[in-house]
Amino acid sequence: MKKMIAEGLGTFILVFFGAGSAVLMGAHIGMHGIAIAFGLSIVAAAYGLGAISGAHLNPAVSLGALVAGRMSAGAFVQYVIAQVAGAIIAAAVIWLIASGKADYAVTANGLGQNGYGAGYNGEYGLGAALVFEVVATFVFVTVILGATGPGSSAGFAGLAIGLTLAGIHLVGINVTGVSVNPARSIGPAVFAGGKALADLWVFIVAPLAGGALAGIVHAAGLTRADD
Amino acid sequence: MKKMIAEGLGTFILVFFGAGSAVLMGAHIGMHGIAIAFGLSIVAAAYGLGAISGAHLNPAVSLGALVAGRMSAGAFVQYVIAQVAGAIIAAAVIWLIASGKADYAVTANGLGQNGYGAGYNGEYGLGAALVFEVVATFVFVTVILGATGPGSSAGFAGLAIGLTLAGIHLVGINVTGVSVNPARSIGPAVFAGGKALADLWVFIVAPLAGGALAGIVHAAGLTRADD
Amino acid sequence: MKKMIAEGLGTFILVFFGAGSAVLMGAHIGMHGIAIAFGLSIVAAAYGLGAISGAHLNPAVSLGALVAGRMSAGAFVQYVIAQVAGAIIAAAVIWLIASGKADYAVTANGLGQNGYGAGYNGEYGLGAALVFEVVATFVFVTVILGATGPGSSAGFAGLAIGLTLAGIHLVGINVTGVSVNPARSIGPAVFAGGKALADLWVFIVAPLAGGALAGIVHAAGLTRADD
Amino acid sequence: MKKMIAEGLGTFILVFFGAGSAVLMGAHIGMHGIAIAFGLSIVAAAYGLGAISGAHLNPAVSLGALVAGRMSAGAFVQYVIAQVAGAIIAAAVIWLIASGKADYAVTANGLGQNGYGAGYNGEYGLGAALVFEVVATFVFVTVILGATGPGSSAGFAGLAIGLTLAGIHLVGINVTGVSVNPARSIGPAVFAGGKALADLWVFIVAPLAGGALAGIVHAAGLTRADD
Repeated sequence: MKKMIAEGLGTFILVFFGAGSAVLMGAHIGMHGIAIAFGLSIVAAAYGLGAISGAHLNPAVSLGALVAGRMSAGAFVQYVIAQVAGAIIAAAVIWLIASGKADYAVTANGLGQNGYGAGYNGEYGLGAALVFEVVATFVFVTVILGATGPGSSAGFAGLAIGLTLAGIHLVGINVTGVSVNPARSIGPAVFAGGKALADLWVFIVAPLAGGALAGIVHAAGLTRADD
Repeated sequence: MKKMIAEGLGTFILVFFGAGSAVLMGAHIGMHGIAIAFGLSIVAAAYGLGAISGAHLNPAVSLGALVAGRMSAGAFVQYVIAQVAGAIIAAAVIWLIASGKADYAVTANGLGQNGYGAGYNGEYGLGAALVFEVVATFVFVTVILGATGPGSSAGFAGLAIGLTLAGIHLVGINVTGVSVNPARSIGPAVFAGGKALADLWVFIVAPLAGGALAGIVHAAGLTRADD
Repeated sequence: MKKMIAEGLGTFILVFFGAGSAVLMGAHIGMHGIAIAFGLSIVAAAYGLGAISGAHLNPAVSLGALVAGRMSAGAFVQYVIAQVAGAIIAAAVIWLIASGKADYAVTANGLGQNGYGAGYNGEYGLGAALVFEVVATFVFVTVILGATGPGSSAGFAGLAIGLTLAGIHLVGINVTGVSVNPARSIGPAVFAGGKALADLWVFIVAPLAGGALAGIVHAAGLTRADD
Repeated sequence: MKKMIAEGLGTFILVFFGAGSAVLMGAHIGMHGIAIAFGLSIVAAAYGLGAISGAHLNPAVSLGALVAGRMSAGAFVQYVIAQVAGAIIAAAVIWLIASGKADYAVTANGLGQNGYGAGYNGEYGLGAALVFEVVATFVFVTVILGATGPGSSAGFAGLAIGLTLAGIHLVGINVTGVSVNPARSIGPAVFAGGKALADLWVFIVAPLAGGALAGIVHAAGLTRADD
């Protein structure tokens, strides 16, 4: 139960910092600032709660860990439930705060949701969105498994993983808003509805594919240091 | 006495970097730069002075530590006195420097004070300000208690906590200017007066509530790794 | 073989983050954001894959290590092949994603390539480009050899080296786009063609010269802490 | 001799990154980017060369160490000579690169020099410049002495000190350009001449005063953890 609380609260922090910065501060800090906020949320959760649950905060990360043989199927299901719940609560809190702005218009487009195509950020097509999300999640989960695996530098993982997520956002916010994390996408989509919900399958399928692939490659030893 | 000096000087650094960057450089570095300055002030104080006092720098953090059973009531009072004094001195030094600008107009609105409502940043309402400050302080103090508690990575706490504070600022400067710290709010308000003083209760009550809640949850073991 | 995979994937990450951020996000995050993305790519690769290959990711770094007596000629050749391959694949993926943008014009000028002179960034001359690249690579490889050599702080090297690369980019993107790494330059140039290919020799010769010089100076003990 | 090389090269890195980013990239990365470049230069020099000389890179830091009883007068003189030489060489290299820009006008105002008053950045007066430089250097050297003194976290000092310098720049670039380091000021002033030379005394006297004060306070035990 304590692990589920840690995963839920940690994913809350991820969405609250990341999507929250986009919604409440995007016009002031731009995509650079949003990218940093996403990265720092991992640092916060990893050092604040990682000793409890490992701070996955992301079903694609948990799937990679499952495939790599580092967690059980039962724990995987518990983690994912907690992650999605934390993300949904965070989106609700962001909406609550955002709606307190004098000139806030409650629309379906402004909760930090992911997307692609006409009307979304750089208007990249579905193919570009899929390629970006699969590749970026593969890189992200490979780094996570390596930074927490054999030969890694104890203590540095949270920082390295957070900065990696920031780097990924510096590449892809204009493409998809950057998911690499189904929970992070589900939270805002639930409240934004419409296009965000219609596009949501991409941000569930592609990150899970990238994360599973990273787990397989790691389990095969190709990206794992010798024990 | 040495601990009070460390807390006072550390809180001076927090306000000098954070509010100072807003007042003296805000037009050049924007809210992203101000957020980073607040975060780096914690890094400076934690590694420079943390070995003396633990670098709370914040009555809400000290209250969380008190509630979590990590400090005595007597020490709490001493810490808070030092923190508020350091913040007030920092605000005075910022004003001193700011008034040395050729075209500086000494007004009540420009010392990095917190606020909400009409005329303050994004003009968010009181409800949004309270929700943001309670939630953000709860997250902040939970991360601090976890990063310095059982199972934490020795040495990383100062960095993790500073980056967490930067992340919180990337979410909320447009909402309240971000307090999560009564001392940080009291310092500038003393000199800014007017609306800053009228709004000040929010930035005393909400951070203390969030910090106390984090302490209670941590003490109950819900966000604490097993010893 | 595993080392070649690590170097190839690591250099993929470097070019995917660095050149990818320039191509896909440059208009939104500016040269500051691009500089940070390059730096964070090293952090990702170093902590995620460094335990396997040492995360050189750069023929100039490997040449410095060779000259400093830290790697064999055979390993050097393998590393360079993997690095160049990883960079080319990354450039291909960036192009693939970029071409998915509705209004993307497939031109020879927009894959994050390096360059100098008329039509390239600040239009600095060849002399300035050569001086910058030799000096910056000398500094970069000196820091790398020192941060991983006698007396260094275990674990910090990946972070220090990544932040050093970010700092170098904060100085030189407007001059040459910053190579300090022949592989990073070859990848985009292969697809950009034209001027990028014509200028490419500079970004092979100058970084290798700077890296070799750093290796010589380090091997002579001038920049090496005593064992 | 090796220590002088390390101090000279380290201070070269500081000025090359910091003043170089201002001169070559200031129009693109703004004061936020320049602040980060200064901070990262310390990280580079500390982890790359710190095992040799301690990476003072700054006469005010060395004076603080001297006053705090941590270095001899003879070493102090050697360090300062190397620091000033490194800074001057860096300014020369920056000028060399800058003059390679097609539309570069060789003027006395554009080598990253410090200053105050009419015609310099925010046009702050002498009093503001002195207060800022003394206070900022006192904070900087206090953090350095604490982060490298009793009870400090081994390995973190370079990162903490670099991030502290970045934070100080986020407060003061618009005031004085931020010196807190006589060598950093002397380098560009030698080539910029005119007002930069006329203002130079401020950036020698004030940082040395702040550094000495920090050393005295630390030596008295007020900002030093118990052994």
